[in-house]
Amino acid sequence: MNPISVGIIGATGYSGMELLRLLSGHPDVVMRCITSRSEAGRAVSEVFPALRGEINLQFTEPKTAELTECDVVFCATPNGIAMQYAENLLDAGVKLIDLSADFRLTDIAMWEKWYDMPHACPDLVKEAVYGLPEINRAAIKTANLVANPGCYPTATILGFLPLLESNLIDHIGLIADVKSGVSGAGRAAKLATSFAELSESFTAYSATKHRHQPEIAAQLAQLAGLAINPIFTPHLLPIIRGIHATLYAKLNAVGRKTELQQCFVNRFANEPFVDVMPENSHPTTKSVRGTNICRIAVHRQFDTVIVLAVEDNLVKGAAGQAIQNMNLMFGLPET
Amino acid sequence: MNPISVGIIGATGYSGMELLRLLSGHPDVVMRCITSRSEAGRAVSEVFPALRGEINLQFTEPKTAELTECDVVFCATPNGIAMQYAENLLDAGVKLIDLSADFRLTDIAMWEKWYDMPHACPDLVKEAVYGLPEINRAAIKTANLVANPGCYPTATILGFLPLLESNLIDHIGLIADVKSGVSGAGRAAKLATSFAELSESFTAYSATKHRHQPEIAAQLAQLAGLAINPIFTPHLLPIIRGIHATLYAKLNAVGRKTELQQCFVNRFANEPFVDVMPENSHPTTKSVRGTNICRIAVHRQFDTVIVLAVEDNLVKGAAGQAIQNMNLMFGLPET
Amino acid sequence: MNPISVGIIGATGYSGMELLRLLSGHPDVVMRCITSRSEAGRAVSEVFPALRGEINLQFTEPKTAELTECDVVFCATPNGIAMQYAENLLDAGVKLIDLSADFRLTDIAMWEKWYDMPHACPDLVKEAVYGLPEINRAAIKTANLVANPGCYPTATILGFLPLLESNLIDHIGLIADVKSGVSGAGRAAKLATSFAELSESFTAYSATKHRHQPEIAAQLAQLAGLAINPIFTPHLLPIIRGIHATLYAKLNAVGRKTELQQCFVNRFANEPFVDVMPENSHPTTKSVRGTNICRIAVHRQFDTVIVLAVEDNLVKGAAGQAIQNMNLMFGLPET
Amino acid sequence: MNPISVGIIGATGYSGMELLRLLSGHPDVVMRCITSRSEAGRAVSEVFPALRGEINLQFTEPKTAELTECDVVFCATPNGIAMQYAENLLDAGVKLIDLSADFRLTDIAMWEKWYDMPHACPDLVKEAVYGLPEINRAAIKTANLVANPGCYPTATILGFLPLLESNLIDHIGLIADVKSGVSGAGRAAKLATSFAELSESFTAYSATKHRHQPEIAAQLAQLAGLAINPIFTPHLLPIIRGIHATLYAKLNAVGRKTELQQCFVNRFANEPFVDVMPENSHPTTKSVRGTNICRIAVHRQFDTVIVLAVEDNLVKGAAGQAIQNMNLMFGLPET
Repeated sequence: MNPISVGIIGATGYSGMELLRLLSGHPDVVMRCITSRSEAGRAVSEVFPALRGEINLQFTEPKTAELTECDVVFCATPNGIAMQYAENLLDAGVKLIDLSADFRLTDIAMWEKWYDMPHACPDLVKEAVYGLPEINRAAIKTANLVANPGCYPTATILGFLPLLESNLIDHIGLIADVKSGVSGAGRAAKLATSFAELSESFTAYSATKHRHQPEIAAQLAQLAGLAINPIFTPHLLPIIRGIHATLYAKLNAVGRKTELQQCFVNRFANEPFVDVMPENSHPTTKSVRGTNICRIAVHRQFDTVIVLAVEDNLVKGAAGQAIQNMNLMFGLPET
Repeated sequence: MNPISVGIIGATGYSGMELLRLLSGHPDVVMRCITSRSEAGRAVSEVFPALRGEINLQFTEPKTAELTECDVVFCATPNGIAMQYAENLLDAGVKLIDLSADFRLTDIAMWEKWYDMPHACPDLVKEAVYGLPEINRAAIKTANLVANPGCYPTATILGFLPLLESNLIDHIGLIADVKSGVSGAGRAAKLATSFAELSESFTAYSATKHRHQPEIAAQLAQLAGLAINPIFTPHLLPIIRGIHATLYAKLNAVGRKTELQQCFVNRFANEPFVDVMPENSHPTTKSVRGTNICRIAVHRQFDTVIVLAVEDNLVKGAAGQAIQNMNLMFGLPET
Repeated sequence: MNPISVGIIGATGYSGMELLRLLSGHPDVVMRCITSRSEAGRAVSEVFPALRGEINLQFTEPKTAELTECDVVFCATPNGIAMQYAENLLDAGVKLIDLSADFRLTDIAMWEKWYDMPHACPDLVKEAVYGLPEINRAAIKTANLVANPGCYPTATILGFLPLLESNLIDHIGLIADVKSGVSGAGRAAKLATSFAELSESFTAYSATKHRHQPEIAAQLAQLAGLAINPIFTPHLLPIIRGIHATLYAKLNAVGRKTELQQCFVNRFANEPFVDVMPENSHPTTKSVRGTNICRIAVHRQFDTVIVLAVEDNLVKGAAGQAIQNMNLMFGLPET
Repeated sequence: MNPISVGIIGATGYSGMELLRLLSGHPDVVMRCITSRSEAGRAVSEVFPALRGEINLQFTEPKTAELTECDVVFCATPNGIAMQYAENLLDAGVKLIDLSADFRLTDIAMWEKWYDMPHACPDLVKEAVYGLPEINRAAIKTANLVANPGCYPTATILGFLPLLESNLIDHIGLIADVKSGVSGAGRAAKLATSFAELSESFTAYSATKHRHQPEIAAQLAQLAGLAINPIFTPHLLPIIRGIHATLYAKLNAVGRKTELQQCFVNRFANEPFVDVMPENSHPTTKSVRGTNICRIAVHRQFDTVIVLAVEDNLVKGAAGQAIQNMNLMFGLPET
């Protein structure tokens, strides 16, 4: 097989850097162009010294002509950019994997409300497949446009997944208390994410209005077959990489009689990137650092099920899952 | 007034060190003896170089004769030690402030189950006052034996306090998702709290069986006037000091119509060590580092109230609150 | 005595915040105005939540009329600002303590070269006293204009001080390998000091061209009575506060026969803020966190003396030393 | 070619864990036995959850019979253990790569003084090759016993290497001010390396008596052809992985006229694991985290050359270099 020709739009953030790191070691990939408006003309290895000797390309201005010659393009841009490239790329037969939020919500009105801008191509949203292989593997294989899930939603949805699919919990009162490392906040210089502010500190943020809430709600509703509106509280951890979701739900009559551990083990038995730990375990974010694994433990306190789910927000929560999707789209081994 | 003569039993942990630091700057206190079996004979400033020039005493073997000459004794020992000194000290007219858990639960059977040892003086437990000034100020003033609250319970109880007192929430389904800095785990050398294991990591622990759960449950029940059994999930933060409690409760019919912000502001208006932040705030653990303040913010998402409460686990969660109690017991200004 | 009326220009950086924290607890001080162009109109406690309840002033636009009514003004601004206020303030009889570099170098040409701007008041530079009490205490007492030393120079000069005064080392080949916490880099949002870049990393910077090199060189030359040009290499530590200087010098014939430990102990015996540790000690930056102490240990390897000196860069290296200077200038106890 | 059969003695420390991680991804290796007295009987993935799914072996008691059936054995034990296995293994034709210090010093008397025990097999020390490929590649290829260099010596020797080989510096007055992440201190639970002690702190240690000093001295002397006794000061960084060496030497007459940058570039042009950065660079430890690269920058201040060298202490400073040596010994590609 010919190697896959890959383009990356906007590779100067942490997700983009992680994409570069992972793709540079991928045996079936050739990187064709890496674009960045801000860094055009600089060598990739100058911007990211850790990639010295790994990647010998320069950042270029994003040009449609060059991008349409790729087999697949990853968008690792801020929200609102990918939707401007999507039509041209898809028309040219290029597959698009969008790591931003542009194609994650099928409800356009809701998207426009939460992201506070008009959507550039609402018609394409229908074509997009939500790129969580554990629920949409078949659809991803034939997709041309994949909406790569957000970092918080990935851990949260995977944690609730067996409980909702097997109908073991009440649909009201779901709580997702989720903690993220700071790389999730992007690579821009901000006082709030400076070392002196963040180190030796911890805080919640956006307690009632984070954009990942509607994304989680929509996917959980899909799984349950009815409306679900979970409470979602994000927190900022003084670590670089890692998400820890602590999920709470009330067991229903069926759930109270079910072996929860076995239910999780069975559901993910064939998933290469979900690891259900033994009973009474507590996964650490460190144990998945740099890997594409989501590690899960299930606990029960009184009639409440508590799910602990960890992932590396830049890998399973972003770049790693994007490559997992690319592998599916091109018939390569998923791992 | 004569200065208060103070003894400390077991001052080699982090709470004990914080007691030393705070008491060394207290204008009405004279430190009479500082005991430690393991460090007896060494200068305090040798064990804690940060106290060089502040405290010129040595650690001594704990001897009852010397301790009974103090006006007040603080116990900063592991659980199970304070109860062995209590009778002798109280009989000698010495006030006792216990920073361990020996006198926190009035239900002896439950204490013995959770702490896995027989209680040495069950009769004295009745005399102990739970040392949370915000609910027991009057009783503390006349107490001879104060059970200083645990670090997790302090933040958790203060956060739920206005909601339960005003009867604004359902009594079932309370959730306390609480995160603590590592100094809460004590000063012993353990692999789990080593820098290489803990740094750049985050995890839950004891998800369904932490000893602070029954302490919280008992105090919340007292406030509500009926049984409450909250879900309590502790987590370990890669910071030294600080606790962040994220508390969830379902608003009842009254609560849904109540101005929650105003309710919190009113309840704590005269509390010198509780600070209710403006609406839409997110307190950081750093903002209370080294202080005796518990800082609280209230949020609402759908019909769920979310309370964010932060404190320094070694100060308001341990040594600072102990001194606040001492001040009350001796008629000194609380602050 | 009337309380001292204090003004602060530019109090929104970390040194300024530390000044506010320390002055708010100073018994002889009344804060009259706290200026900041960027934050004018906002409450101090809103910008620095940790000061809620401590300071009830607002930031104001810097106005000369108001500043000239103070007894003393601190400048905690970027370089190049203090020199624009100095003449007016001094003419009005206001004492000025400048925490920036505007008055630290007496050689105007050298200052203009390193700071890359013309000096606004070269005539006043002569009047400025370098505010290191351990060498200039008498002059500080009568000074109207104090140039508060840089953070690196404070630790470096104090460490070399006894060796140069007693003429125990060669004047060539002095090396200062110095490591600083990130608060030394200021409170501006920069990618280089973001948590994700700095945490779990360490690096040297400005290896041959840091502005504190000429400041150190000038002061060491003053102490030695002849030109000294030390090698100075700054490094950035993944901690918030703290400087650790590792200083190397070749012992001369006299030095090789001298009891170095005793020499240091004697020199600093009466200094309240310099603590010489016992032989074979290694001071930690943590042991001086939040204090105004410079803690020093002396080692010898072959014919090289190694001095380890630690300080809190925001206290002894900035705000604390500034207040020590203020106390001297107003005849208050230094501590 | 048949895969190489590998045994590891003592794989429960951080170097051992890193060996496991790297070897589990090595295409030409089969792991035959992984021994540990303390963890015998437990699954490797239970002790190191991050290796779940990667390694399905159990730790076993170290038994010579099993070890002698391997092609190569790595010793990742404390000092003093490898020398007890060496004779049996070599007699059985097994190659031995020792990550401890047992075979690093050829001067037995000096070894016994610094390591404070008698050496078990002084005759074998002569046969050992010091496993730094950049100076001993040819000898390593034919060696049966390799003494894998210490973490500090690797960075320090590589940094001084071009200067000494080309005879550009004075041989007296060499200074190595070196900073290490905490994983270098091993995986035992110690108060000194606990998070609460180490985080937000920095300190020197063993200022005049670290065991790596004689190792560095011996290797530099070998390079220079005459005795060299550098000053070596280790420091403990609040990071997990990474070493940063700041090296100082006085340029001699030849050195002062030499293009130092070019000298370094030329010397390491063909070294796959040494990366000389462009002029005026400052390598960060983060840029080599998880890699086998030593990244170097050269600076000059007056007549002093300053070399900055970074490495991951667990990879190029331990396990990665050990595998580099194994690859050389078995004729595999070095990378």
